[in-house]
Amino acid sequence: MQAPVPGQLPPVPRVLSAWYVLAETHELRAGAKPLRRSLYGDPIALWRGEDGVAAAVVDRCPHRDVPLSFGQVRGNHLQCGYHGWEFDGQGACKRIPSLLGEADRPGRRVARFEVREQQGLVWVWATPGAEPDVDPHRFLYADKPEYMTVRMQLQADGSLHSVAENALDVPHTAFLHGGLFRKDSATRNRIQASLRRTTEMVECEYIGEPRPEGLVARLLSPSGGLVTHFDRFVMPCIAEVEYGMGTENHFVNAVALTPVDDHVTRLYSVSSLRTRLPTLLVRPVVQPLALRIFQQDAVVLKLQRDSMQHFGTARYTSTEVDLVGPHILRMLNRAASGGQPSGETYTTVVELEV
Amino acid sequence: MQAPVPGQLPPVPRVLSAWYVLAETHELRAGAKPLRRSLYGDPIALWRGEDGVAAAVVDRCPHRDVPLSFGQVRGNHLQCGYHGWEFDGQGACKRIPSLLGEADRPGRRVARFEVREQQGLVWVWATPGAEPDVDPHRFLYADKPEYMTVRMQLQADGSLHSVAENALDVPHTAFLHGGLFRKDSATRNRIQASLRRTTEMVECEYIGEPRPEGLVARLLSPSGGLVTHFDRFVMPCIAEVEYGMGTENHFVNAVALTPVDDHVTRLYSVSSLRTRLPTLLVRPVVQPLALRIFQQDAVVLKLQRDSMQHFGTARYTSTEVDLVGPHILRMLNRAASGGQPSGETYTTVVELEV
Amino acid sequence: MQAPVPGQLPPVPRVLSAWYVLAETHELRAGAKPLRRSLYGDPIALWRGEDGVAAAVVDRCPHRDVPLSFGQVRGNHLQCGYHGWEFDGQGACKRIPSLLGEADRPGRRVARFEVREQQGLVWVWATPGAEPDVDPHRFLYADKPEYMTVRMQLQADGSLHSVAENALDVPHTAFLHGGLFRKDSATRNRIQASLRRTTEMVECEYIGEPRPEGLVARLLSPSGGLVTHFDRFVMPCIAEVEYGMGTENHFVNAVALTPVDDHVTRLYSVSSLRTRLPTLLVRPVVQPLALRIFQQDAVVLKLQRDSMQHFGTARYTSTEVDLVGPHILRMLNRAASGGQPSGETYTTVVELEV
Repeated sequence: MQAPVPGQLPPVPRVLSAWYVLAETHELRAGAKPLRRSLYGDPIALWRGEDGVAAAVVDRCPHRDVPLSFGQVRGNHLQCGYHGWEFDGQGACKRIPSLLGEADRPGRRVARFEVREQQGLVWVWATPGAEPDVDPHRFLYADKPEYMTVRMQLQADGSLHSVAENALDVPHTAFLHGGLFRKDSATRNRIQASLRRTTEMVECEYIGEPRPEGLVARLLSPSGGLVTHFDRFVMPCIAEVEYGMGTENHFVNAVALTPVDDHVTRLYSVSSLRTRLPTLLVRPVVQPLALRIFQQDAVVLKLQRDSMQHFGTARYTSTEVDLVGPHILRMLNRAASGGQPSGETYTTVVELEV
Repeated sequence: MQAPVPGQLPPVPRVLSAWYVLAETHELRAGAKPLRRSLYGDPIALWRGEDGVAAAVVDRCPHRDVPLSFGQVRGNHLQCGYHGWEFDGQGACKRIPSLLGEADRPGRRVARFEVREQQGLVWVWATPGAEPDVDPHRFLYADKPEYMTVRMQLQADGSLHSVAENALDVPHTAFLHGGLFRKDSATRNRIQASLRRTTEMVECEYIGEPRPEGLVARLLSPSGGLVTHFDRFVMPCIAEVEYGMGTENHFVNAVALTPVDDHVTRLYSVSSLRTRLPTLLVRPVVQPLALRIFQQDAVVLKLQRDSMQHFGTARYTSTEVDLVGPHILRMLNRAASGGQPSGETYTTVVELEV
Repeated sequence: MQAPVPGQLPPVPRVLSAWYVLAETHELRAGAKPLRRSLYGDPIALWRGEDGVAAAVVDRCPHRDVPLSFGQVRGNHLQCGYHGWEFDGQGACKRIPSLLGEADRPGRRVARFEVREQQGLVWVWATPGAEPDVDPHRFLYADKPEYMTVRMQLQADGSLHSVAENALDVPHTAFLHGGLFRKDSATRNRIQASLRRTTEMVECEYIGEPRPEGLVARLLSPSGGLVTHFDRFVMPCIAEVEYGMGTENHFVNAVALTPVDDHVTRLYSVSSLRTRLPTLLVRPVVQPLALRIFQQDAVVLKLQRDSMQHFGTARYTSTEVDLVGPHILRMLNRAASGGQPSGETYTTVVELEV
């Protein structure tokens, strides 16, 4: 534990043996200008060769430090824009213009990352040179034809943990988003939250919840009906909110969280909705509302981050209605420090008012 | 004494057992949006409850670090804008929405500051949780009906000491403000300055001073007459310039200096003027001139601060005509290091040319 | 060798027993507002007295730290803009307004720099208070009437070494400036580079080089003819590219490099051209092209610097076609660490493709 330094953001757990989304498939066109992305603050050059294969390397030419993403794709190689050095998808140096003789030598290679494409997303394994031992997360409803699936990219000034906690937190919605889908009122409902934590995920089910107040819920379920609601975090970067209202409405908003740096998080959102309403009606209403809610979250996340930076610490004081956030932090901390999955399952039931 | 670090501003004395002005009374309306202010770099949330009582706490919710000033006033409480936690003027936690059971616990409190309102100013005791042992400064002429009193807020990029020295320094006026109320000339007047320093204040009286050159003086005292002139610093934040010209003109420009941070100072100026001239004539001339003079001071204070930052040190070389500045620094340093008032009085007389 | 700190630029060699250009003669007018310039990050006040003599001092008044360049020239003195202290070209304090008695005392002096003017440039010896043991660099063709000499000031975000290497590097031109005066192609020419390094300079002659591709070369030498080409670095700040095409065209682009700070370099370029073409035709074509080439270099130099800053290191991997850059760095490092000239000469011949 480092001593807090006012003016400096506190350290966060970095889970490096993991897949993170660095782009959507459609952003990475064959032979086009490479993309410069960032993971935990380190720049990564992403490109797709003319053979259609995506590749990723540390974004720094070993020759003169210039970002390789400043260059261009030549065939399947990435060519540096300064002196024209070329690298293949394995990071090997394939050409040094002007030089007679062999280009590839150990000191002239660039570290490369494993890349996997799935469901329209480009996943990169966070440790360069390492082989993944698991597959990237698969979104359960994203490919089902009976669901309307909408994708969005967003970015927030907060750590992966702060953003995940915010996405899966119920009590703040009546205040930060007051009126949009919950509100503070004198007559609150007492409900139960049933929480289950394994090594790889924490899930919270809300029991007895009334249909949420507000426009969105009224649109989705005009007749009311039983509400089912789960908040879920899957290690190390998936936050998922699942709502059922009545038998016909099912809404799963999943987000893959990418730590651009320790305190900036990019959200690749995959929202799948099954409803009786015509999607032509739903979309123009739901998307602007979702964006407005996100903007409010982004404002408070930045305030939270700037405050942590000012004081040099994250001084959380949690209560039992902070349901999933503290579990997320605990799981991230254990994984970041190399702790092994214990296999045990933890469960609890909490009463709260919403 | 720390070693200088080029690029870093040198440390300054922080006098924390003291009152500073954080707002004017009219800025803090009952039940309105809280104010975020800063003292020696630390954020303070100021609000006025619906009962009219002003309160101040550290601007950081103990729950998730978000500034409480982002929230709103509910009754007499300050409510956090993220999860709706509520605090009273003593910093006690009075409500945690969603949570069943008692809200207030030691770890959920927020540190609060003593607040005092007087003469239209909101004073805050700089040490949270502490009880003041003195009263805030009272401005002698601000309430007198025979004086016209004008208030202004200004801000300068310099330490409290640099700003106070600048406000009370005579020699610079002929150069930085050349022509506005003094000027450099071949025929200078030799005068005496009589200085007296106690533990709590330093005062300099100028004897034999001719009527200042320039427009302001000519307006105030068209017929000339005896000039009396005092420069005064009252610990730890009051700088006061007092001028008499003839028997009928009396001008006291007092400034309460608030260290927004170590190297940014806010000035709450309280200027009281008694003159035979109609105030309708004086005001449109004096205020723009005062602002122009302040702008020139602000430029040089920022240059001074940036230069100290570049070199990492404040390398003052004072002479005997730097009359009050070195005494101010000495008093601030002693108070900041917890030195006790000695009770002794120091006096000196210096000859100088103006 | 310091450990790399991510986010901090790596240290560079500082050669302080040397002349650097701080201004052009025409910028420094007698009695006019002083200039504030910077050398290795330290501010220098430059002024020309009414007697026409140029002078330079550390840009910080010993009294209250304010930059002296904020003031004005009075006669031959530099007068501080805050309290009017005056200094002569030797840094002695000649006047303290308001003070009775002698102004000059050791603690009131300001460190001064030796200044030399030559060929329209104002050179300053980088160590204050020291006497130079050599003369400033003289540009061989700048005064010859048969040459057209054009001067320009440019600035790049890179260390003196990075900018010098870039200016004297051949292989990058076919990529960064592809098409402007060289291009990458399948049919490259094998040539020889003959390099000679003494203690004070490194020079590379290219043998067998075809006329460069592109517009500039075609304009200068429409009929072709033998190409002679030298790249030259003279310690510690002169980069020179010399081209001959046929017997009538001779082009020498010399640049005096000034380290504004460790990672920002100002270029005082002195380009001399002798050609059969009418200069009225050459100038409107050559200057915009030169600027376009420089803009491309400036972009890559900034990317290189920002990348070094991100990783906290300059991790160069040179090959034998990095001809002069590594020698420049070696010479700068030896001079910065106080190493004595050895007197030995190093030569080598390298084959490369252009």
